[in-house]
Amino acid sequence: MFQPVQVSRPIIHYENNRIEYTEDTIVTEYPITIVLDQQEFATMVCTPEYVEDLVIGFLASEGVIQNFNDIKEIRIVETAGYAYVETNNKNKFNEMFHSKRYVTSCCGKSRQSFYFYSDAKTVKTQSSKNVKLSYEDCFRLMDSMQQSARTFKDTGGVHYAALCDKNGIIVARMDIGRHNALDKIYGYCLRNGISLNEKVIVFSGRISSEILLKAAKIGCEIVLSKSAPTELALKLAEELGITTVGFIRNGTLNVYTNPERIQI
Amino acid sequence: MFQPVQVSRPIIHYENNRIEYTEDTIVTEYPITIVLDQQEFATMVCTPEYVEDLVIGFLASEGVIQNFNDIKEIRIVETAGYAYVETNNKNKFNEMFHSKRYVTSCCGKSRQSFYFYSDAKTVKTQSSKNVKLSYEDCFRLMDSMQQSARTFKDTGGVHYAALCDKNGIIVARMDIGRHNALDKIYGYCLRNGISLNEKVIVFSGRISSEILLKAAKIGCEIVLSKSAPTELALKLAEELGITTVGFIRNGTLNVYTNPERIQI
Repeated sequence: MFQPVQVSRPIIHYENNRIEYTEDTIVTEYPITIVLDQQEFATMVCTPEYVEDLVIGFLASEGVIQNFNDIKEIRIVETAGYAYVETNNKNKFNEMFHSKRYVTSCCGKSRQSFYFYSDAKTVKTQSSKNVKLSYEDCFRLMDSMQQSARTFKDTGGVHYAALCDKNGIIVARMDIGRHNALDKIYGYCLRNGISLNEKVIVFSGRISSEILLKAAKIGCEIVLSKSAPTELALKLAEELGITTVGFIRNGTLNVYTNPERIQI
Repeated sequence: MFQPVQVSRPIIHYENNRIEYTEDTIVTEYPITIVLDQQEFATMVCTPEYVEDLVIGFLASEGVIQNFNDIKEIRIVETAGYAYVETNNKNKFNEMFHSKRYVTSCCGKSRQSFYFYSDAKTVKTQSSKNVKLSYEDCFRLMDSMQQSARTFKDTGGVHYAALCDKNGIIVARMDIGRHNALDKIYGYCLRNGISLNEKVIVFSGRISSEILLKAAKIGCEIVLSKSAPTELALKLAEELGITTVGFIRNGTLNVYTNPERIQI
């Protein structure tokens, strides 16, 4: 068994000139090292639940696997924090290029975007505009995600992500790592054969370039966030055809890119 | 010149069933690739200010350099986003071990901690207890940092960190990347020969294991945060002798580890 996702710890709480020796709930973090075809590939710290999906989603978004069948065997050794993965396409993945920067001039335009080599292999451009949300849908989906975000309220320490369609949440995951919550969703969908087309990602954190690229790899058309986007994320969203909506709170929101998917 | 740290963009703002076509301030992100002794070493995205300090601090916390004199030359090519670094101790750094996980049983205790090899080389244990803060000092230092956090208020998109002593802020930096704000501070201090002993880090974000390790590499005795810690960060803080204080907001705070440095 993995560690619990949160534990109780003794703390000193200070309030109104009074000190109280009490207990507080603290979110846990767990290191997991992926050993890919007998080679140490990556180590990440994560919230210790849905770790197998995390590993599958991470490998897919890094371009190591294209689908779940590319994995021959996956074995998680919880106590030591290791994930041993055997793939069916050994040698196909060129680790030389794994974290290499890849500078491209996208779509013949003059501006330059930024990807890693592995990103350039795996991002999907969204040309279809099949998903439409109303403004009310945006608020409703954000509410649904926040209501499912129990541990965040208890401990203030994790990010939440939910994969949705117009009807509501399909799967929601949390993690102390921003990317991990999305990788857990991606892994879940690959493992269960859930189509990622025409879907919406709802995310508790900022829309950074890395989060936007992750959503693009998963194949979502719309990203909804409670928080702010970055300029680089918005440039990438424009190029990749993704709709971004931020600062969804207190009955207001901002639409940043590809607004035609959001309608009254 | 680098890009500006924030730009204005057209957005659609929705509020009370009304759509407004307006402008909003968006924080920028900038990729920077470090080429170390002619080899591509790492790429990070950052807020484009104090980039030289970021590179210096990052290399020091990764254990590539021990002090500023280990750098023979550093050249930032802003337009392309590359930092070319020549060191005086070429070949000393063993890149084979750079991101390798390093499992250790610390201090002969039975629990196992988690470091990367490069962390194990560079973390400092704080056995001295020379810095003492009152509860009021904690609130005052957090206030000072938040008052200096202009861009965060404008755009909601960056993390802030400040290096302090009991008297107030020595240097404050912001970045869209959690670690980068700390690396910018570290680089600034190395470049200017500012001693890092007996100092306090004030941080806007969560105290994760990675942030705690970064503070330990810098050599600080106390970490103050507006937000939550993780359990792994607290274990590391106990082992490394660092005082952690979290949830500093609205006149309350929690002391998690090594409380003897915080006094009425």
